[in-house]
Amino acid sequence: MPTRQKIKFGIVGLGRLGKRHAENIAFKVPGVELLAACSICASEIKYAQESLDVKNVYSNYDEMLLNKELDAIFVASSSNVHCEQIEKALNAGLHVFTEKPLGVNTEETLRVKEAVDAHPDQVFMLGFMRRSDKSYSHAKKMIDEGKIGKPFLVRCYGLDPDSQALNVIPFLKTSGGLFIDMSTHDADLARWFLGKEAVSAYAVGGCYKYPQYADEGDIDNGVAIINFEDNMICMLYVGRTAPNGYQVETEIVGTEGTLRIAAIPEKNDITIYDKTGALRECSQNFLERFEDAFVREVAEFVKCINKGTKPSVNVNDGIQATKIAEACQKAYETGTIVNI
Amino acid sequence: MPTRQKIKFGIVGLGRLGKRHAENIAFKVPGVELLAACSICASEIKYAQESLDVKNVYSNYDEMLLNKELDAIFVASSSNVHCEQIEKALNAGLHVFTEKPLGVNTEETLRVKEAVDAHPDQVFMLGFMRRSDKSYSHAKKMIDEGKIGKPFLVRCYGLDPDSQALNVIPFLKTSGGLFIDMSTHDADLARWFLGKEAVSAYAVGGCYKYPQYADEGDIDNGVAIINFEDNMICMLYVGRTAPNGYQVETEIVGTEGTLRIAAIPEKNDITIYDKTGALRECSQNFLERFEDAFVREVAEFVKCINKGTKPSVNVNDGIQATKIAEACQKAYETGTIVNI
Amino acid sequence: MPTRQKIKFGIVGLGRLGKRHAENIAFKVPGVELLAACSICASEIKYAQESLDVKNVYSNYDEMLLNKELDAIFVASSSNVHCEQIEKALNAGLHVFTEKPLGVNTEETLRVKEAVDAHPDQVFMLGFMRRSDKSYSHAKKMIDEGKIGKPFLVRCYGLDPDSQALNVIPFLKTSGGLFIDMSTHDADLARWFLGKEAVSAYAVGGCYKYPQYADEGDIDNGVAIINFEDNMICMLYVGRTAPNGYQVETEIVGTEGTLRIAAIPEKNDITIYDKTGALRECSQNFLERFEDAFVREVAEFVKCINKGTKPSVNVNDGIQATKIAEACQKAYETGTIVNI
Amino acid sequence: MPTRQKIKFGIVGLGRLGKRHAENIAFKVPGVELLAACSICASEIKYAQESLDVKNVYSNYDEMLLNKELDAIFVASSSNVHCEQIEKALNAGLHVFTEKPLGVNTEETLRVKEAVDAHPDQVFMLGFMRRSDKSYSHAKKMIDEGKIGKPFLVRCYGLDPDSQALNVIPFLKTSGGLFIDMSTHDADLARWFLGKEAVSAYAVGGCYKYPQYADEGDIDNGVAIINFEDNMICMLYVGRTAPNGYQVETEIVGTEGTLRIAAIPEKNDITIYDKTGALRECSQNFLERFEDAFVREVAEFVKCINKGTKPSVNVNDGIQATKIAEACQKAYETGTIVNI
Repeated sequence: MPTRQKIKFGIVGLGRLGKRHAENIAFKVPGVELLAACSICASEIKYAQESLDVKNVYSNYDEMLLNKELDAIFVASSSNVHCEQIEKALNAGLHVFTEKPLGVNTEETLRVKEAVDAHPDQVFMLGFMRRSDKSYSHAKKMIDEGKIGKPFLVRCYGLDPDSQALNVIPFLKTSGGLFIDMSTHDADLARWFLGKEAVSAYAVGGCYKYPQYADEGDIDNGVAIINFEDNMICMLYVGRTAPNGYQVETEIVGTEGTLRIAAIPEKNDITIYDKTGALRECSQNFLERFEDAFVREVAEFVKCINKGTKPSVNVNDGIQATKIAEACQKAYETGTIVNI
Repeated sequence: MPTRQKIKFGIVGLGRLGKRHAENIAFKVPGVELLAACSICASEIKYAQESLDVKNVYSNYDEMLLNKELDAIFVASSSNVHCEQIEKALNAGLHVFTEKPLGVNTEETLRVKEAVDAHPDQVFMLGFMRRSDKSYSHAKKMIDEGKIGKPFLVRCYGLDPDSQALNVIPFLKTSGGLFIDMSTHDADLARWFLGKEAVSAYAVGGCYKYPQYADEGDIDNGVAIINFEDNMICMLYVGRTAPNGYQVETEIVGTEGTLRIAAIPEKNDITIYDKTGALRECSQNFLERFEDAFVREVAEFVKCINKGTKPSVNVNDGIQATKIAEACQKAYETGTIVNI
Repeated sequence: MPTRQKIKFGIVGLGRLGKRHAENIAFKVPGVELLAACSICASEIKYAQESLDVKNVYSNYDEMLLNKELDAIFVASSSNVHCEQIEKALNAGLHVFTEKPLGVNTEETLRVKEAVDAHPDQVFMLGFMRRSDKSYSHAKKMIDEGKIGKPFLVRCYGLDPDSQALNVIPFLKTSGGLFIDMSTHDADLARWFLGKEAVSAYAVGGCYKYPQYADEGDIDNGVAIINFEDNMICMLYVGRTAPNGYQVETEIVGTEGTLRIAAIPEKNDITIYDKTGALRECSQNFLERFEDAFVREVAEFVKCINKGTKPSVNVNDGIQATKIAEACQKAYETGTIVNI
Repeated sequence: MPTRQKIKFGIVGLGRLGKRHAENIAFKVPGVELLAACSICASEIKYAQESLDVKNVYSNYDEMLLNKELDAIFVASSSNVHCEQIEKALNAGLHVFTEKPLGVNTEETLRVKEAVDAHPDQVFMLGFMRRSDKSYSHAKKMIDEGKIGKPFLVRCYGLDPDSQALNVIPFLKTSGGLFIDMSTHDADLARWFLGKEAVSAYAVGGCYKYPQYADEGDIDNGVAIINFEDNMICMLYVGRTAPNGYQVETEIVGTEGTLRIAAIPEKNDITIYDKTGALRECSQNFLERFEDAFVREVAEFVKCINKGTKPSVNVNDGIQATKIAEACQKAYETGTIVNI
């Protein structure tokens, strides 16, 4: 854990999630320093300087890369510039941690893969933060230890809270569709827990609550079966109308046992007994639910830099998750079984 | 289970709980017949005839006892006549099942004991129905099998729903006080699970929500520590303001494990996910919570009659439970530790 | 509830489930009498006489139907004779309650429908007992009252305990396959909760634990998506290797709320705290899990007879459930989306 | 959150809990620096230098206090030197955070109070970390907002895991007894949630599992009722034989609702379905259960220093908690009701 020399980060993008990452790097991840921040938005620059004490701020990403003190870049910008920024950072000799998605289409993600492969000594890690969550990583450990025998079925729920459903509408047009936008994390979990690659997908869905989604060419809830090698299966349910909050639930069924993670996405350890009954309040968003995981994933990245090891999430994981999400989307749109 | 000859019951008292017992005897308990019913209330008599097809109805208890077809009497009348009616039925050669309490003071309960002892071939059973509940009886079985090692502590919650708190006020004056009125079931459970007798009690409490209770000389919530032989302990909490419903919860702590029964008094197996969170609805009263137990206890009574065995709850259990409740009440009233 | 004249039942079939039904009719369902029993197995006849006090016993079904005292027939025989026995009983002027499945192929079930339609004054009811379970019926009531808005997705788990997986193997060959054998109850629930008919199905599965199943041409676990009218969806998971017991779990997702039934198939209300953690024991089979529902469904049947009303489960429900199960089976076998 | 100037800490004591605090200050609490460490144990000094990069190390506490760069002292030494070290640090002009207990008797804690009062501009905070736990602080917030009406009863379980019960035996002689050693945290919670002071205590207990405890003049489990002003009540259960792990559970009963915190001390969000049933694994010790709270309490301390505000836990809280624990201990030892 001790690091004589702190790893110096530059972050690009300080939106809602970017801010959280910046704060984590500035205050919560041991052995690091937030040396630089880049944003095209003046208020975000101001925030970095005043709230995070960032010394070097930039409105131009290329300029930030010229800062010779930097060790690593954290990419938290818009999805459409991820690939370009990753490549540039790698070419500048920097370690790179990027928020998901890797890119917006398979072509550019393959280009990133080339760049990553071309810089084998630099750490590249993708932010599938669920893998860093205490419960998810413990489940993985149990599975690897054989506690549930051979896993063969994963059920994934990835549901955003209904309270945010209307706020999302302006972004639907460019989101690529429900499955593209919401199923990469679940696709990654299924691959991770099953240890297999996906081979085909079938998906259905509809606009059940918000006709406005249909106006944008999208749906508000969808379900898929994703077939994996060796007949393994992923049942997927993604949606934007979860009544109780941010419901990320995952179940791994094995030949000797089943693990169910966060069947109730508890906000805390309190049970409230009142006139309605016995109530558990629920997490409302990913920042709340995965608060610790967002810190842990960066800590893992730093550890890899310090120890010269490989992170648990690599560029191929990003590519495969995107492929699965694309297949689900296409399956839904065509009403057919789509090969991956 | 087959009974060539059905056991013929006469019931006395057809109030809320009496009706339930009458219906159970008429329709749900195998091998029995509700042959007679006695009540001083005309509407109850009418109910017995019209809804339960009871052939023989009486307004006079002594007359009912003259019915030569009867095998057993079910006492569901007012607490203050229990003892007298039990004695008369025993003396008439009938088996007797009585609702709790056995009596309203220790003196008369001791007289019942004499009557019971004088008729050893007749079955006498007391309605501590919790012992017949599926969960409670399974817990007892696990304890007897040594699953939790040696039990040494029982925590009992016996809470009535706040929704009924105001309805109870007219009955407080004659109830004997909160501990007398509400702790015999819990006292019985503690004795049953620990397998020991109580030796002293200390109790506290107050009027926290309803000053009207104080006007009647009573309290709305109270807590006690009851000491048992061998240093064993019962922590008791009785009250009338449970926000979520009828909360009967019991925990038995042993040297190798702990059993907690009905920490959430679930109404059914449904979890409701809505905008408040994840909710379990709760049982609202003893008729709902112990629906099955009220049938099972009578089935046990019948089985004892048919097989000539002894029921699991006897007259001494009733006497001891009353003694404990009285000690808690006195401890509360005097602010001292009361020996039992 | 009062029935001057008890409904007189004859039961055919006294296997494991038939016995349970016979006991319920003999002892637990109010207002009925088990007058006759028919079985080709001498030991079952003996059981009926000795344990259930059945007066009229038959080895020939047609003879039983000649008994003029009978009001109703309970069909609990082998699946392959259900249809014939139902038709005969209806033609004999008797009310009929039949265990599921209605029949073993759509053709014969349509013939039953004709017979039912030809006797509109006789009550015909099918034993989809889950609908009579306290939790399931309460969920239905909540949905009908609009508590979860518009339901659009049902997730059904119908899992048999792994402890029985090897015992089932001899019966696989004639079972029709996993989906045929195990998904009619779930198909019925989906129709019931969604209030729509199924239009197509897609299914996958495999032998994950028991290669012996493959030897019999079957699989041990399977998953399906069943599309309903108006884009509604059923996610189905059926299997025979549930590690914890008999896991029947159903979730109904609506636009305003979600109901999850029996996420943990609790055996009772006890939480066991021991060195492994906090444990809930689970139900091990349908007789245990649906003990009360098996009584309630017959009580509903009797009520319909007495009041001249229609039961909640009719012949069409049986036909549709079978169609869905067949579609899932065919979808699995062909790897295609199958229209219903 | 931004702090131009980091608060510089010196820590004294690097035992099990001291190490955790040192790591938190070094790596996890934002805006602080672990500048110095003091221990009489060479291996602890080595650990501080090598694992935590601490620049200034001391074997003599007085010498550390001479370090002019220090802003604050963290006291994590043996209980018997807490008071002296707190006073010295305050007199040296430093802010002080001390682990509980404040002291080993009321007399010396009152002397600490004088020292704290004499330095009103220096922040003094006591490590009742439960108050900083996410669930506990949320419960307090709900209570302050009136969500449960008026709280009147607190039930506290403070149970150490049975797995550690034998390891503790060597320390029993100097622990002061079960209630002294284990009930200050719970006493503090009761005061905090009820907003009242304790007036008397009654306690019972025994050696139920380990006769070795009796050999040391101690007991392994004990229960108390603590009376608070306005008839309010705390039911306390402390013990060392919890089968499932480290069970800190707290229930606050109010006139309009009840909050129950950590009824199952869940290790994570996973439910394990296996042949035993549905299992939740449990936390095994306070470092695991209160991992986050140990960070948050120091963050609060730092915030108070930076903003000149008062911490939520003050010297009087420590004094009162100790008084309550002493009263419980005396009540147990004398078998009487002890006034506080």
